[in-house]
Amino acid sequence: MADHAVASGPTKFETHPSRYKHWALNVDGEIATLKMQVDSDHPHKPGYELKLNSYDLSVDIELADAIQRLRFEHPQVKCLVFAADLDRVFCSGANIYMLGLSTHSFKVNFCKFTNETRIYLEDASANSGFATLAACKGTTAGGGYELALACDEIALVDDGNSAVSFPETPLLAVLPGTGGLTRLVDKRRVRRDRADVFCTTAEGIKGKRAKDWGLVDHVVARSAWDKTVGDRAKALAAKQTIVRGPAIELPPLNAKLESDTLSYKFVTLKIDRAARTGELTIRGPEASDTELDANTWSLRAFRELDEALLRLRFDMSEIGMVTVRTVGDHKLVQQHDERLAKAAESNGFAREIRLLQRRVLKRYDNTARSFYAVADTPSSCFAGSLLELALGADRFYMLIDGDEKIGVSVSVANTGFFTMSSGLSRLDARFYGDPERVRAVLGQDAFVPSEQAEKLGIATIAADDIDFADELRIAVEERASLSPDALTGMEQSLRFVGPETLETKIFGRLSAWQNWIFTRANSTGEHGALTLYGQPTRPQFQWSRT
Amino acid sequence: MADHAVASGPTKFETHPSRYKHWALNVDGEIATLKMQVDSDHPHKPGYELKLNSYDLSVDIELADAIQRLRFEHPQVKCLVFAADLDRVFCSGANIYMLGLSTHSFKVNFCKFTNETRIYLEDASANSGFATLAACKGTTAGGGYELALACDEIALVDDGNSAVSFPETPLLAVLPGTGGLTRLVDKRRVRRDRADVFCTTAEGIKGKRAKDWGLVDHVVARSAWDKTVGDRAKALAAKQTIVRGPAIELPPLNAKLESDTLSYKFVTLKIDRAARTGELTIRGPEASDTELDANTWSLRAFRELDEALLRLRFDMSEIGMVTVRTVGDHKLVQQHDERLAKAAESNGFAREIRLLQRRVLKRYDNTARSFYAVADTPSSCFAGSLLELALGADRFYMLIDGDEKIGVSVSVANTGFFTMSSGLSRLDARFYGDPERVRAVLGQDAFVPSEQAEKLGIATIAADDIDFADELRIAVEERASLSPDALTGMEQSLRFVGPETLETKIFGRLSAWQNWIFTRANSTGEHGALTLYGQPTRPQFQWSRT
Repeated sequence: MADHAVASGPTKFETHPSRYKHWALNVDGEIATLKMQVDSDHPHKPGYELKLNSYDLSVDIELADAIQRLRFEHPQVKCLVFAADLDRVFCSGANIYMLGLSTHSFKVNFCKFTNETRIYLEDASANSGFATLAACKGTTAGGGYELALACDEIALVDDGNSAVSFPETPLLAVLPGTGGLTRLVDKRRVRRDRADVFCTTAEGIKGKRAKDWGLVDHVVARSAWDKTVGDRAKALAAKQTIVRGPAIELPPLNAKLESDTLSYKFVTLKIDRAARTGELTIRGPEASDTELDANTWSLRAFRELDEALLRLRFDMSEIGMVTVRTVGDHKLVQQHDERLAKAAESNGFAREIRLLQRRVLKRYDNTARSFYAVADTPSSCFAGSLLELALGADRFYMLIDGDEKIGVSVSVANTGFFTMSSGLSRLDARFYGDPERVRAVLGQDAFVPSEQAEKLGIATIAADDIDFADELRIAVEERASLSPDALTGMEQSLRFVGPETLETKIFGRLSAWQNWIFTRANSTGEHGALTLYGQPTRPQFQWSRT
Repeated sequence: MADHAVASGPTKFETHPSRYKHWALNVDGEIATLKMQVDSDHPHKPGYELKLNSYDLSVDIELADAIQRLRFEHPQVKCLVFAADLDRVFCSGANIYMLGLSTHSFKVNFCKFTNETRIYLEDASANSGFATLAACKGTTAGGGYELALACDEIALVDDGNSAVSFPETPLLAVLPGTGGLTRLVDKRRVRRDRADVFCTTAEGIKGKRAKDWGLVDHVVARSAWDKTVGDRAKALAAKQTIVRGPAIELPPLNAKLESDTLSYKFVTLKIDRAARTGELTIRGPEASDTELDANTWSLRAFRELDEALLRLRFDMSEIGMVTVRTVGDHKLVQQHDERLAKAAESNGFAREIRLLQRRVLKRYDNTARSFYAVADTPSSCFAGSLLELALGADRFYMLIDGDEKIGVSVSVANTGFFTMSSGLSRLDARFYGDPERVRAVLGQDAFVPSEQAEKLGIATIAADDIDFADELRIAVEERASLSPDALTGMEQSLRFVGPETLETKIFGRLSAWQNWIFTRANSTGEHGALTLYGQPTRPQFQWSRT
């Protein structure tokens, strides 16, 4: 099985509607339409065709780009309609042959990315004033139905044929991998016994029954289709109260990749392939710039971090241990954070920047690599929004310097807006069930040197010059020597303390079961159903239940 | 790898303190002590020795028996102290060689059973007026520390040597398998970055630091050990307010196993090995007996069901699809339920029976088999506490008979006491977010025939004589033909809708990650750390992160 990253070079996460191969984005006043028109001849990797509006990573990268641009570049849009160019197929889900050809690591990261993108649709609807409508005029199967489930409303054509379905379990011996099971029962509240019938009925459910069971919101005759979809889109748009804008265009990030260093304006990721470690550095703002624009630090640095995390996930699968450093001026970060938070009260663009920062920090929490934040020079800058990177890391190492120039500072960015998937702020998660300690940290108006940061519970380990470098080096080497699988499971369990949400259920529960199932012979073994899909040979199962 | 069940015949879950090989139970007034004294020469299966108070299924079966007996037979006990016979080792966790020799299915079911037993300790403390104290006078590693984490308080001897530890990730490339990660951060609220350090430090943490980090509650010098442990036990006992009793002795269940039928007084499990299906039948009470005693139906039938479920899990691993039928008189079940609920207001024994029924129903929810409840004869008896079996099943098939003799009835048993692991009642989970429908069901004073039960949302499928038998037969055959792994993941996702708790996190999130990790080459492959444990060869890891 080919490792996508090694085989095909760096994954390109940057795109633009003018270059889309698989979607057509059309904006018409308050209504935008994303028409799925997957080009079967342009898969992400050679080896399979993207027939029947099936998708792969390339298709999903364009989708993620479109959602982001709608938020920033088209603030007038209040409803996004998903449609398709085929007459009898809305979307047939993730491409099975692509899955069959992919490594386990790629499959898992592909599912994680598509899950994040689906959650961004729900985030846009909840926080950014644009609703989503899935206009399913034809077969809506597997990941196609999961895309629909992430929308606010689902319309299904009533043509005696078109059904929604989850054929994954009966046909492929896997689970719907993009949150479908959780959204069925938790979001749409489909009765669990009906969900059971639905998820084991390969041909799916159509027409009146699909509506009665709550699988879709509207079943619509072909003759009434265009009008009904248009009316529903207008009705959803009319309900929106959150105002975005002013519009800004998202400039390209233009990452540079030179040997083992990926660099952007504010973000650098340097890897050591032999040691299987990486060094991620995020630089703070250079000045207290006066205008909010497309190049403002808060937006640009976090967009860069987002892409660097995706490249780490997809293209550097053996880099398991990453140190995270920051460089800059504490005061400037605090100024940017405070100004942004204030502006966000009345300015939709500022609000969008904060929401983007929140999503990027969630992507960081959800990246299956060990992160050790490190503050070891006076130029380090774990302040405000950058302090979140230390709070989200598995450990935070701080050097105690005689001058007390190394430390942390808090800002409005730490007070609760930047929630994790669990709904807790990173400080609330760190001091779970102990709000006094959260208040003690947030009460620090001044710069907090390392020793004090350790006392407050911010630093995991603070040490002076004599011990620091050795202690950190040994910790990094030790971490890089441990089983990557065990670390992923351990980190998932320790990072997400406390309450569970749809998001944590999808990433922590559903994905873990899917990971397990992907490794089982019954799906991906020689005689497994995923392996044999499309071939005349029937799968042979090992019957032991676990 | 040997399948334990096939190799060694039926697993014996019934035991008695007089026959314990691995524990000594001592009751002294309000304080009971369970001293771990694992007999290394009596493992559950030949092939390994249980050195250093390491445990296997046999050890845990005795532990589960002891907890159950303390609840029913020793109502005066208000604190249970865990101790050990060795001077320098409390417990070194699950036996690694046993794990290395076990099938995946056995490992997963072993972890599930040990998890249930740990949760029963917490249940006893929360609901039955007996607290638990782990008196760790020596090394407390892995599953040994997980047992301690399930207790209300942990005392660790301060001898410069004894530590608590989770060596699983660094030494074995797996996770602590018995809820340890979740209890560290969610229950004991150990800071996540400290938990990260702890879980990757094979030698563990001892003394003052163990207390400062919240890993233990007391660190105690050897000279003060006996007195401090005694004092803490008395203090915990003094805090208890819930009264159990009167004492009753739990009689043996005396299951009979004849070819493919396991039978008890009220419960029968008949399997068809070729079809990989089973038929579970639970009979209702025979009379409205007037006294609550050890043989009362509510206690005996649920104890039998509990053991049958364990036998299904451990000894019939290929039986993936089980139909669940009930036989009896609706009115008698309702009478038993109502009488028991009323008695429980003032009678501790009655209360214990209800708590046991609740635990058994949770065990049913958490059994990785497809359950279809079936009401297809007028003698069927899905009433009250037995109706919970239909509500907990993946589907409920009901025959619509002309006479309307087939149906369901509700009782006080359906109104909320019998919570699932999520904290929801099975009716609340069925109609998640729709309390009106729950009220509509609970408002049914009379017998509800099948057709009406379908309208109310109780039956998944109700059909008349012409279709019923064929429809059920096909549904059972289809289910038995699907991949057992995909079904386990699907059922776990659909059954536990709504809120998450420590329990659902342990069974749904932590266990899923552990299942995945158990299948990975890095733990159980030829060069994996679990496989090579105790051998001079170092494991070789595949480094790709997922």
